Amino acid sequence: MSPSGLARFIRLGQQADPVILDALSRGAPSEFRPALSYHFEVAGKRMRAAMVVLSCAAAGGRVERAIKPAAVVEMIHNYSLVMDDLIDRGEVRRGRPTVRVVMGDSIALLVAMFYREVLDDLIEDLPANRNVRKVAVKTMKEIIDGERLDLLLEQAGRTDPYLIKNRISKPTFKTYLDMVGKKTASLFKAAGQVGAYAANAETRIVNALGTYGWKAGLAFQVMDDVLDICGEKTGKQQAKDIIEHKLGNAAILIALRFLSRKDREELKKIVGSERVSTQMLKKARSMVNKTPAERECREIAMKYLEDAKASLSVLKPSPFKDALSDLADQVVARSY
Amino acid sequence: MSPSGLARFIRLGQQADPVILDALSRGAPSEFRPALSYHFEVAGKRMRAAMVVLSCAAAGGRVERAIKPAAVVEMIHNYSLVMDDLIDRGEVRRGRPTVRVVMGDSIALLVAMFYREVLDDLIEDLPANRNVRKVAVKTMKEIIDGERLDLLLEQAGRTDPYLIKNRISKPTFKTYLDMVGKKTASLFKAAGQVGAYAANAETRIVNALGTYGWKAGLAFQVMDDVLDICGEKTGKQQAKDIIEHKLGNAAILIALRFLSRKDREELKKIVGSERVSTQMLKKARSMVNKTPAERECREIAMKYLEDAKASLSVLKPSPFKDALSDLADQVVARSY
Repeated sequence: MSPSGLARFIRLGQQADPVILDALSRGAPSEFRPALSYHFEVAGKRMRAAMVVLSCAAAGGRVERAIKPAAVVEMIHNYSLVMDDLIDRGEVRRGRPTVRVVMGDSIALLVAMFYREVLDDLIEDLPANRNVRKVAVKTMKEIIDGERLDLLLEQAGRTDPYLIKNRISKPTFKTYLDMVGKKTASLFKAAGQVGAYAANAETRIVNALGTYGWKAGLAFQVMDDVLDICGEKTGKQQAKDIIEHKLGNAAILIALRFLSRKDREELKKIVGSERVSTQMLKKARSMVNKTPAERECREIAMKYLEDAKASLSVLKPSPFKDALSDLADQVVARSY
Repeated sequence: MSPSGLARFIRLGQQADPVILDALSRGAPSEFRPALSYHFEVAGKRMRAAMVVLSCAAAGGRVERAIKPAAVVEMIHNYSLVMDDLIDRGEVRRGRPTVRVVMGDSIALLVAMFYREVLDDLIEDLPANRNVRKVAVKTMKEIIDGERLDLLLEQAGRTDPYLIKNRISKPTFKTYLDMVGKKTASLFKAAGQVGAYAANAETRIVNALGTYGWKAGLAFQVMDDVLDICGEKTGKQQAKDIIEHKLGNAAILIALRFLSRKDREELKKIVGSERVSTQMLKKARSMVNKTPAERECREIAMKYLEDAKASLSVLKPSPFKDALSDLADQVVARSY
C-alpha cells in the first residue's frame, strides 16, 4: 500500500473531526473549551473512523451516513486515551504533550469525563441510535475491563492494593488474548458493526464486519507488541512494555515458552523489577531475540489479518470492500 | 422533624439500592465486582433517591415507577463522588476509607468509569428514557463544570497548569452561585424533574419540582459551607475548605465583605497559603466569626429553603407533598 493510500484513509476518517468539535462545544463554557479541544488539535490517524466509513460503504450504505457513527467510535477511542494517560502517567501522545501534562491531572480527568457526555450526545443524534448505543456501552465496559487486566499483568511499579492482591503473575496466552481482545480489538469490532448499522445491513453483514474489525484489531495489537520489544525504531520509546513491567505483551509471553528455566526466571525478574536499568533492558531484549518469538508473533498477526480479510467474503465486490482489505493491512503495518 | 422521619426518607431512597447492585453486576467479570460494589456497601442517606420517589408520588405517580429513576439519580451522585475523591485525594467517605484508598487510584478510576456505563444501562431500562437521558447528560455536564469552577476557586495546593493560569482569585457571590448551582443544586433539580417524569406529569409540574430541587440544593450547599467554617462539630474535619484553599465557600465570601481591608487580605492570605497551620486555621475561623457571615448565610439558606417549599404550591395537597417539604428541611438540616 502506497503512502497516498494511507493518506486517503486518514482523510476518510478525519471527516468525523468537525462533528466531534461541534459536539464538544455544546454545554461547555468558553473558558473550558481550550482544555476540551486540545487533545483534538493534533489529528490522529483516525483509523477507527475510517473503518466505520468504509464498513458502511462496503455494506452498501452511503458514506455520508457513516460520518456521525464514525465520530462516536473515534470519541470512544479518544476518551479512553485521555483516561489511559492518567493511569499510565503518559507524557507524550501523537508527538505532543498529553492533556494531563498541558492542563494537569485534575482537569484532564474532567475533560475525559466531559468527553463521555459528549459521546452520549453524538449517539443521541444518530437515527439507529439504540443499536449503536448498545454496541458503544458494551465496548466501553470491555475497554475498562481490558485496562484492568492490563494493569493486573504489570509485575511492579504500582502500589494500588487491588492490583497487588490480584496480580496475574503467570498469564497464559488465553489471558493475554482476553486482555487485548477487550482493550484493543473490541473497539475495532465496534467500528465494523457500527459501520454496518449505518448501512442498515442485515445481521450476517453486521457480524462479518464485526469479525473483520475484531481480527484486524488483534493483528494490530500483536504487531504493536512485537515492534515494542523487537523493533529497531518505531518512533516510540523502545521496549516501553518492559520498562512498564507489562507481562501482557505477546512477544514476551511467547519468548518465555522457549527460554530455559534460568533465562525465563531472569526475564520475569527484569519485568518485575521496580527499576529497569538500560542494561537490564538490553539483556531482556536480547533474550527475547534469541527465541523465535518475533517470527511466531508475526505469524500469529498474519493469521489474524488473513482471518479479517476472509470475513469480508460475504460482501459484494466493490472498491470499498477492497479498501477495507487495504485498511486492515495499513492498521497492522503501523504502530500508532 | 423527628429522627424516625429521617429514617423514613432513608428507607425510601434505599429502595434504589437493589436496582443499582443488580446493574453493577452486568458485564463485569466476577473478579471486578468487589471493587465495583465496595462503594455501595455502606449505604449513604440516599436523599436524592428519596427526592425522586417523593416527587413522583407528589405528582400523582406510583412509587414503584420511581425506583429505577431514583437509581439513575443516585448513580450520578456516586459516580461523581468516586471521581471527586480522586481529584481531592479524599480518604474517608461515609465513615469508611474511600474506593481510591482501598483499591488504589487506577482501579478507582476504572470503577468510576464503569459506573458511568452502568448509568447508561439504568437509563436505557426506563420507559420515558429520552427525557431522563436528556436531564442526566445535562446534569453531568453541569457537575463536571461545577467541579472545574470549584477547582479554579482554590487559591493554592495544586500544580495543574490550567488551574494556575485560570484561577479565580476575586470571585463574586454570583460566581459562587454559578459553581454551587452546577456542582450541587443541578442534581437535586434533576431529582425533582426525573421524579415528575416518572409520574408522567405535565411540564409546569416538572418545572416546579425542578425548582424545588434546585432551591433545596442551594440551601443545602450554603448550610454545608457555613457548618464547615462556623460549625462546632459536624463529624467532618473542621474548616476543611480553608485547609483545601477553597474560596468557593459562602461563609468565607460573605465574611470578606465585612472585614477591614487588612483582615480581608489576611484571610485571603491564609486561604492562599500552601500550608495552613492549626494557628492560621483558628485565626481564619475567628475572623469569619467576628462578622455576621454565619447569620447571613443562614438567612440566605432559609430563603432558598422557603423558595423550595413555595414551589410545591402547584401540587395538590397530599401526604407526599408534605413529605417533600419535610425532606427539604432534612436535606438542609444535615451536612452529609
